Amino acid sequence: MKIALDAMGGDHAPEPIVAGAVKAVAADPELRVVLVGDQARIEPLVPADAPGRDRIEFFHCSQAIGMEESPVVGLRKKPDNSISRSWQLLAQQKVTGIVSAGNTGAMVAGGLFLRRFLKNVGRPGIAAVMPTIKGPSVMIDVGANVSPKAEHLFQYGVMGAIFAKHILKCERPTIGLMNVGSEEAKGTDLAKETHALFHASPFAERFVGNIEGRDIQRGVADVVVCDGFVGNVMLKTCEGVFEFVMKVLHKELLPALDVERDKAAQVLQALIGRYDYSAFGGAPLLGIDGICIICHGSSGEVAIKNALAIAAQYVRAGLNDLIVKELDAVHAPGAPGA
Amino acid sequence: MKIALDAMGGDHAPEPIVAGAVKAVAADPELRVVLVGDQARIEPLVPADAPGRDRIEFFHCSQAIGMEESPVVGLRKKPDNSISRSWQLLAQQKVTGIVSAGNTGAMVAGGLFLRRFLKNVGRPGIAAVMPTIKGPSVMIDVGANVSPKAEHLFQYGVMGAIFAKHILKCERPTIGLMNVGSEEAKGTDLAKETHALFHASPFAERFVGNIEGRDIQRGVADVVVCDGFVGNVMLKTCEGVFEFVMKVLHKELLPALDVERDKAAQVLQALIGRYDYSAFGGAPLLGIDGICIICHGSSGEVAIKNALAIAAQYVRAGLNDLIVKELDAVHAPGAPGA
Repeated sequence: MKIALDAMGGDHAPEPIVAGAVKAVAADPELRVVLVGDQARIEPLVPADAPGRDRIEFFHCSQAIGMEESPVVGLRKKPDNSISRSWQLLAQQKVTGIVSAGNTGAMVAGGLFLRRFLKNVGRPGIAAVMPTIKGPSVMIDVGANVSPKAEHLFQYGVMGAIFAKHILKCERPTIGLMNVGSEEAKGTDLAKETHALFHASPFAERFVGNIEGRDIQRGVADVVVCDGFVGNVMLKTCEGVFEFVMKVLHKELLPALDVERDKAAQVLQALIGRYDYSAFGGAPLLGIDGICIICHGSSGEVAIKNALAIAAQYVRAGLNDLIVKELDAVHAPGAPGA
Repeated sequence: MKIALDAMGGDHAPEPIVAGAVKAVAADPELRVVLVGDQARIEPLVPADAPGRDRIEFFHCSQAIGMEESPVVGLRKKPDNSISRSWQLLAQQKVTGIVSAGNTGAMVAGGLFLRRFLKNVGRPGIAAVMPTIKGPSVMIDVGANVSPKAEHLFQYGVMGAIFAKHILKCERPTIGLMNVGSEEAKGTDLAKETHALFHASPFAERFVGNIEGRDIQRGVADVVVCDGFVGNVMLKTCEGVFEFVMKVLHKELLPALDVERDKAAQVLQALIGRYDYSAFGGAPLLGIDGICIICHGSSGEVAIKNALAIAAQYVRAGLNDLIVKELDAVHAPGAPGA
């Protein structure tokens, strides 16, 4: 299987991106990676004797969209940018998936522009894996679609459940709808319509209803459905609170200890590494005909290696076929919610 | 000054609620409290010799809306409930403010029903004080108005800035708009319209533009403006992440220490007390003609005492007059944004 990797995308690209690719092909003998970017700059970063070196190719392009650049302007003014080129490789079926730690807006817009959506999917959504007290859960959408319709949110729930089952190995994933309270009548019109769609669908049994912000980390649902505005704000709020608590602990807990200060500092450091939301690996854009993994801008080589591994796992599990099949069943004539 | 306190509202009402009132009148010689609720049950909870006992009155009512009860059904089917009675005392100007740790939805709906809004205020919004690395900031709205218009969000910014200046003692409060990215063109239509309103207003200089979820705890803005859906979800997400991190620390940090485990546990306990979002005192419903403080359902006597103190501070600062004056200036003929 072949995955295109945007070598120019990321806060510290291209060095850690290319290093991640080198690590990924060494770890997975079936994986082939196409590094998309400025070949003169990226080719020398791949050691000639790296294990799996023959499974790394290059696709040269001359431009790159900046991390803070307007996605729309970037895509229009830089036709030879690494994100558009990656999407084109996917559209031409030269690769099965694409991975980028570059400009998230440009990645999503590039995908929307091509409109290669899976059957029955109105709009793709970004799924983010969240740590909870009961193990990982998945939140979808975290930023692809800030003004969705109820049917999009319903589809996010279905896609998220398939992701949770096959990637997070959750036997029978439950689905919760993010809202301002647990009562059925709570929230916006969008929330009420989405609630009704789930209730009338074959997923009704697995639908735990409305959940609240504090329920995510409690692991109340395996799949948390929300619009891309709310999901994006929540994901970054989690990052912010985690960062804040760690800062306070460094300022107040560590100085309070004498003999075991170093030991405590090590535990905090390990926690930051494990639970830091910004380092939790790539987030798939679900609903695309192909695999698209969006990584955090600050991704280092390990995050990139993990993102490529997730892409491979996604292909092996045949996730997209499962999504099409499941949504087909929901939309079949006579099916509730059809 | 006289404040009505819903003695029946709260997870553990009426005991800690009444105890909070007793503490509050003892601490503030100008404060009078009207305890609204089942008099036979609450009067015996006030010790006859409590300092300031003569500044505690009772307003008997026979019903109470449950914490999980539908606000609309509760308000309609229980006309003699403590929340409606408190609002009526405010409407009749028998008290200057009301405080409740009861059903938040019923408190907000009770206020909307009376429609005693300040001049130029389209809809009231709940302001929540948030801890940040630079000191407290205020987030508004956190749940009163889940589908606001841009002008409501603009008014929240103005009211939040007055609250930050006079209650949080922030000299020149900055205002940020919660969004999915910092670019002007980001987000929903609502976010874009609100951004434009601030830009064209006399607040343009103090408007720091769009901010993201992770910026709250970094203290990027003193006032964080958002719709009630997003604000409510964010507030509860903060609670959830804090709770989660504390659980993980108790499970992983404390067992890793030998000699200083107790010391570390004490520091964590103090942090929970100080930063626990659920114990951060009451949140004012801004934009009401009068004072309305909504407390967390789990409020104990200290939280209730603090909420009564905030209500008194609010009255002394003449906050509502300042809000009317500021919004009048914005809406004056010829004023930008008028």
